[in-house]
Amino acid sequence: MEDKRQESIQKLNDLIKDVKVAMLTTIDWGILRSRPMQTQEFDFDGDLWFFTSSETHKTEEIEKDRRVNVSYAAPDSNTYVSVTGTAEIVNDRAKIEELWNPIYKAWFPDGLEDPNLILLKVAVEQAEYWDSPSSTLVQVAGFVKAIVTGERADGGENRKISL
Amino acid sequence: MEDKRQESIQKLNDLIKDVKVAMLTTIDWGILRSRPMQTQEFDFDGDLWFFTSSETHKTEEIEKDRRVNVSYAAPDSNTYVSVTGTAEIVNDRAKIEELWNPIYKAWFPDGLEDPNLILLKVAVEQAEYWDSPSSTLVQVAGFVKAIVTGERADGGENRKISL
Repeated sequence: MEDKRQESIQKLNDLIKDVKVAMLTTIDWGILRSRPMQTQEFDFDGDLWFFTSSETHKTEEIEKDRRVNVSYAAPDSNTYVSVTGTAEIVNDRAKIEELWNPIYKAWFPDGLEDPNLILLKVAVEQAEYWDSPSSTLVQVAGFVKAIVTGERADGGENRKISL
Repeated sequence: MEDKRQESIQKLNDLIKDVKVAMLTTIDWGILRSRPMQTQEFDFDGDLWFFTSSETHKTEEIEKDRRVNVSYAAPDSNTYVSVTGTAEIVNDRAKIEELWNPIYKAWFPDGLEDPNLILLKVAVEQAEYWDSPSSTLVQVAGFVKAIVTGERADGGENRKISL
């Protein structure tokens, strides 16, 4: 079980590590909104981490509804990944300093001096990807591979796809 | 009002016309899932149209919950678009034939002969985009531009961003 989890984590890490921007979809007053997020510079270990600002609207949305989707689109390699998870705002200076990388200055010019700099953590519950170079919508169903890296929190087990 | 709607439609068309694959996020038993969709080859007129197969799982999801998000990510031009809308499955042969383009054969090899070929229509209610080359998360809020091309169906007016 633990081996399978590690294998899934490694696979998802391989898929997303070169995608620099992901789209984060949240539920906002009943509608779905997405926005670009700079992806992490370190290996994925089961949780996705994003730097964000406490002044953005999405932090409010996540406080109201923690269910999110993170999609990674890499048209050049025809790789598309859907990650389903539960988001959480983490305002922990030690963790912020641990994960900080100067590359994030492109998005946060003040870096660690920015008092609004916080982390958004997404605990990954399910992931699917499409990586066939000639992937067609008809084939997609057959190509869907699911990576389950944790237990679903909402009891919707009937839709859980397991390796 | 009609002029503004036309202007918004034109702007959104300009933003998305070169993005070949979008990610469609749906609500599936309470969780958010996304998948790649080949985008339309014709101009956007207020509704987004996608070819799909009646045998895919997303058609069931949309029948249960019509709220969707369509995200367009174009890393090369650093353009990211979020479209919020209401989806509908359209199984209308005349419309299918009208919108069909041989380029879709890459995804649907049997083309118009495929009995499962159907359309997914997304009535666009709201769109936001980020197109600054040096777009940062801090700046993003200021750069958000909203394109409202229709009325919201769920009454969540307090979050509606209007031009």
